[in-house]
Amino acid sequence: MKAFFQPDSIAVIGASEALSSFGARYILALHDIGYEGAIYAVNHSGNQVLGRKIHRSILDVQEKIDLACISVPARFVPGVLRECVKKDVKAAIVLSAGFRESGEEGRRLEEEIVEIARQGIRVMGPNCFGTYCPAGKITVVPGGSFPRQAGGTALFAQSGGLSETIAARSFGEGVRYSKVASYGNACDVNEADLLEYFMEDRETKTVASYLEGVRDGRRFFEIAMLNRGRKPLLILKAGVSRKGAVAASSHTGSLAGATAVWDAFFRQTGAIKIGSFDELIDTMVAFSCLPEGCGSRVGFVSGGGGGAVISADACEASGLEMPEFGGETMARLRETIPAIGTSLRNPLDIGIPHPPLEVLRSALETIAASELIDIVVIRRIFFSIKTSKVFSGASSYEEEEELLSIPIEIMKKFNKPVAIIAPEELSGRDDLDLEDDRRRIRDYFFARNIPVFISEQRAFTALSHLVAFRMARLERAAEEKPVKASSKGRALFSEIVKTSRTAILDELRSKKILKGYGIEAAEPVLARSREAAVEASEKLGYPIVMKIASPQIRHKSDIGGVRIGLANKDEVSRAHEEIMGAAEKVTDAVVEGIAVQKMAPPGLELVIGMNKDAQFGPVLMFGLGGTLVEVLKDVAFRIVPLSRKDAKEIIREIKGFRLLEGYRGQPAVDISYIEELLLRVSAMIAKNPEIKEMDINPLIAYPHGAVAVDARVILENEAISGSVGEL
Amino acid sequence: MKAFFQPDSIAVIGASEALSSFGARYILALHDIGYEGAIYAVNHSGNQVLGRKIHRSILDVQEKIDLACISVPARFVPGVLRECVKKDVKAAIVLSAGFRESGEEGRRLEEEIVEIARQGIRVMGPNCFGTYCPAGKITVVPGGSFPRQAGGTALFAQSGGLSETIAARSFGEGVRYSKVASYGNACDVNEADLLEYFMEDRETKTVASYLEGVRDGRRFFEIAMLNRGRKPLLILKAGVSRKGAVAASSHTGSLAGATAVWDAFFRQTGAIKIGSFDELIDTMVAFSCLPEGCGSRVGFVSGGGGGAVISADACEASGLEMPEFGGETMARLRETIPAIGTSLRNPLDIGIPHPPLEVLRSALETIAASELIDIVVIRRIFFSIKTSKVFSGASSYEEEEELLSIPIEIMKKFNKPVAIIAPEELSGRDDLDLEDDRRRIRDYFFARNIPVFISEQRAFTALSHLVAFRMARLERAAEEKPVKASSKGRALFSEIVKTSRTAILDELRSKKILKGYGIEAAEPVLARSREAAVEASEKLGYPIVMKIASPQIRHKSDIGGVRIGLANKDEVSRAHEEIMGAAEKVTDAVVEGIAVQKMAPPGLELVIGMNKDAQFGPVLMFGLGGTLVEVLKDVAFRIVPLSRKDAKEIIREIKGFRLLEGYRGQPAVDISYIEELLLRVSAMIAKNPEIKEMDINPLIAYPHGAVAVDARVILENEAISGSVGEL
Repeated sequence: MKAFFQPDSIAVIGASEALSSFGARYILALHDIGYEGAIYAVNHSGNQVLGRKIHRSILDVQEKIDLACISVPARFVPGVLRECVKKDVKAAIVLSAGFRESGEEGRRLEEEIVEIARQGIRVMGPNCFGTYCPAGKITVVPGGSFPRQAGGTALFAQSGGLSETIAARSFGEGVRYSKVASYGNACDVNEADLLEYFMEDRETKTVASYLEGVRDGRRFFEIAMLNRGRKPLLILKAGVSRKGAVAASSHTGSLAGATAVWDAFFRQTGAIKIGSFDELIDTMVAFSCLPEGCGSRVGFVSGGGGGAVISADACEASGLEMPEFGGETMARLRETIPAIGTSLRNPLDIGIPHPPLEVLRSALETIAASELIDIVVIRRIFFSIKTSKVFSGASSYEEEEELLSIPIEIMKKFNKPVAIIAPEELSGRDDLDLEDDRRRIRDYFFARNIPVFISEQRAFTALSHLVAFRMARLERAAEEKPVKASSKGRALFSEIVKTSRTAILDELRSKKILKGYGIEAAEPVLARSREAAVEASEKLGYPIVMKIASPQIRHKSDIGGVRIGLANKDEVSRAHEEIMGAAEKVTDAVVEGIAVQKMAPPGLELVIGMNKDAQFGPVLMFGLGGTLVEVLKDVAFRIVPLSRKDAKEIIREIKGFRLLEGYRGQPAVDISYIEELLLRVSAMIAKNPEIKEMDINPLIAYPHGAVAVDARVILENEAISGSVGEL
Repeated sequence: MKAFFQPDSIAVIGASEALSSFGARYILALHDIGYEGAIYAVNHSGNQVLGRKIHRSILDVQEKIDLACISVPARFVPGVLRECVKKDVKAAIVLSAGFRESGEEGRRLEEEIVEIARQGIRVMGPNCFGTYCPAGKITVVPGGSFPRQAGGTALFAQSGGLSETIAARSFGEGVRYSKVASYGNACDVNEADLLEYFMEDRETKTVASYLEGVRDGRRFFEIAMLNRGRKPLLILKAGVSRKGAVAASSHTGSLAGATAVWDAFFRQTGAIKIGSFDELIDTMVAFSCLPEGCGSRVGFVSGGGGGAVISADACEASGLEMPEFGGETMARLRETIPAIGTSLRNPLDIGIPHPPLEVLRSALETIAASELIDIVVIRRIFFSIKTSKVFSGASSYEEEEELLSIPIEIMKKFNKPVAIIAPEELSGRDDLDLEDDRRRIRDYFFARNIPVFISEQRAFTALSHLVAFRMARLERAAEEKPVKASSKGRALFSEIVKTSRTAILDELRSKKILKGYGIEAAEPVLARSREAAVEASEKLGYPIVMKIASPQIRHKSDIGGVRIGLANKDEVSRAHEEIMGAAEKVTDAVVEGIAVQKMAPPGLELVIGMNKDAQFGPVLMFGLGGTLVEVLKDVAFRIVPLSRKDAKEIIREIKGFRLLEGYRGQPAVDISYIEELLLRVSAMIAKNPEIKEMDINPLIAYPHGAVAVDARVILENEAISGSVGEL
């Protein structure tokens, strides 16, 4: 991977004489940023570009080449790439578009590239802008003027245009990068490779990304999990809407993925979900200043009351808190701040945006000194005297230096982070000097690790991400090992699969598999005759439930194939006759018998389900059972495997959790047992990749334990034709 | 009210010699904005200010005075105000703070002001900044430099500081005002007065406001309802969080109100709910350009693919749509736009932000020509050649004029609105010239009624408000008359109240009241003996439900006071004995008898409830019944009275609506009957203001009709002691 960011030599393939060509522009950009290695221009037409000889083929270059940048038309790319392999080039960036994103012909060409990449070259792209790395003095095509100064943020984006525009916008805010990669269609190097590389990269402190979809979701998930709480991972996930997903597929050929599963991804990995470009940049700013994150208890100072109200709303909406000040803090505030036109509580409104220096200093000191406060947030205080002059006729410029020094002093003295909200005051064309001043103040504080935000909502959204990261970091230390499943379950699974001719396993087989993983199920007895049914019932005890057992009959109730609450052997006997009679009417149904089981006593109906997501593989669902819940969709998701924390959280995530705790005189159910069950199901799924779908519905929960009343396992079709072996 | 905005003469009371005094600053501001009427300075100390004589009392002024602006310390305000009444001043603005918002002493002073206001003077404030009206050449205290040019937007805010900062920020975006009022603590003139005045004001096209709470919520609701769909009403509602509500109460002494009820307010009145200052300004910009609103079908053109994906997400999130283009549109796009690096669908990605003029023109024309498209939105096309130069080395400035003319031509040719998203490209201090350029382009388009937004999310949020207003406007024409309730119900209500000694009416009385308004209830018979119970049961038919009837026993089940499913007269007889036995154990319970009723057959359990909101009065709740629903809180609210549209919508607003439509083989319930029931309940509540709370729980709904199985009405305490008469 290093060759993509710090190559010793670069061949630019497709660099024509025309200076507007992509290749020529790339060479210019490398010049501008001060690339120090050797650059070789290559084009089948030969000739010269920018005073440099054009080689007709990369094979004509004598010297060693680390990185090839290819911008020839799509149909020529495979040929050029084969020459790169022959020349033993380590890495290639394919800038050209016209591949998977543009139809069948492009898809074929891209597959050809993937084939060639397997022969020993890493390929980034196609349909991208390349990489930017100040340490390697290399830049993306339109990035000749990008800063030469490096920083701690790494960025990767499928979209070339966006990686450029995100980087460009963030530069103005002060953000500096270790590395930026635009990886386009991700035919070889994908988001998982880049994530892994950046997580290990010592220059990188924060990893940010724009994603439309992921090519290797499973690996991406696993790498993110492994690094949970280590470095902040910011993901602007686009294509979350139906329409957006379609737009994404034509942009970088991405499958955007289901929103609920992405939400599970964010919860499990601690990755930070970003909703807009502004939010991405604000959050990069926040982590640039405060790489460790921060606590959630805000001490707030506002230069005006209405803004304090809006800020309190924004604070609560983003999950932070403004705790009440303690008695000592309140006493001190009362001493130093006038009572009229102010509000002495948290949020503290000091009435005006240009308070006397001593009032501001004392307010901030008092708040920062409180043990109840993790971070001090200052809103609409005019640190620029120019702004004060416009709005309130302040008369002297002298105090500005001192004014600016106050937040910095406070931060150092109390060793607590400080953040500032400085709204744009005027935005007319005539007021550009105020904007200049806003930027000056912003840059001043950014350089001293105080982030400055432009609105209340944007500030608290970014700060909430700092809080979430700090939580993930704290939790990282306390992490538990994943649950191990016994190998017995796998052997049993393999045995059961062998005896099934259909991918949809029947209830008996499904429950046997569950049992192999310690999941208790109301186990039915398969009765092949009326006598056997009666005998089984007598043994199991009443009341009894009977269900037709036939792989062809999926909706058993609909054909009259289910009878419940049978109280004695006469009823069982009669029910057997009736069910068999009903089943006879279903043509083509092979009836294996009737499943007889003891009816479970009433309890709280839950459901545990699982299916496979196209991007992330097996996903587990938990929720309340029953028709009503099906309508209200009160369910939660996790990508498999679940940690104990996930099991705890998924149960508490559903809105109906109060029912599990006991509600209106109903007893609480055995929540820790359900946690355990979820972990067992997760282990079962992780150990048996042949399981395509799985359902326990209902799982009836009691004050002690829970029972899987009905269950169904569906296998991948391959699992039936082939054999299931040891993993 | 006119005296607040266009006074012929103003007395400034509290104008001292010190130029920093509020009074002096106010006089200066009036000078600056060019006020043409007479100004009289008043201060008990006499002397001079700004070359103007200071009168010791307003009574010393000989001439007629329209408006008094008072900025003396709070404790002197009542005295000064009494002099104003004596002088026959029509209106007074009290700028001074130190009233209700600052504690008990202030509250007393404010009550004194209210008292004086009743003697014949309208008072705005206290704790405010006054008014701004270009037509009257009057301005708020810090608004000397506000534009003299008038526009169609009116703004009112409790907070003086915010009315100033909102106005100031919006000026830069091009917004111009008819009138601005900051009304502070709203002791006399409140939000309802201002809303009514602005809705009737011919100069005002759009009404915007910042509200922490409302003083006269009921009237505010009624005026907003009356004007639904007439003029856009934008409300930035602050204090929506627990913490924000507390901060609001100390800022302008406001009661911020329950969020769910405010949500009902927005749904019913069609007022536009604004979430932030940015959103308020964006929406004012949108309505300034497109006062009629617009349709929801967006045709989208983006200069880049990643941004198109984000835009599609933002579009869907805000409820707008990007419909698929028709065949003709697609064919035309294929003809004129290159296939590589673009995406020919809606959102249309034309690949680069500086396309050839003809490509842009043709793309926009093709889209605007489509019958499926209501509005054309253009994203990240560089209309500024300076920006193009920076990002893509564009070589000529000549084309800019033509480039700028294209959206305007399209708008005129197809008579369809156009909006532009022009993100900030660079925000460094060195890039101020690009910001200047962005503002230039923005102003150019604003002047031609094309709104320019700075981000995808902000654009679609503002546009969604245009769509909502257009919908409200269309619905306004089709509005139905509210439902009338019969006067018989009122007479019956009065009769029943008379016979109750407690504010909590028992089930029998409650159901009788319902019946008076045509709401069918499973009517119980009060049996005072075992024989009577059996007799009633025989008449009603089995199965029977029996419940203890005692005002002192509220939780009947808990004491064993309820028996259900009684199948014959023996069971009824035994149940009577058992219930009476259980009731005897409750000391102090006066037992009136046992309520006997026929048990309702099973159906879908619903609930209709009502209570009184502190700001808006009676609020009706609708939802699914049962314990599970209680936990999941699947309910919706409307302020009473409900229109037929409200009744239709409230039913469809709950998540469990699918259950009403029939789900999994269950039959659909009688939805139009439930609509009718909701309207009857609403009418009942509107006609009987003595009802404090009301509950029908459960209401059991069937394929035909529905029955109130249990019901309870709670009266205002006054209704019991006093008498209920004709309204």
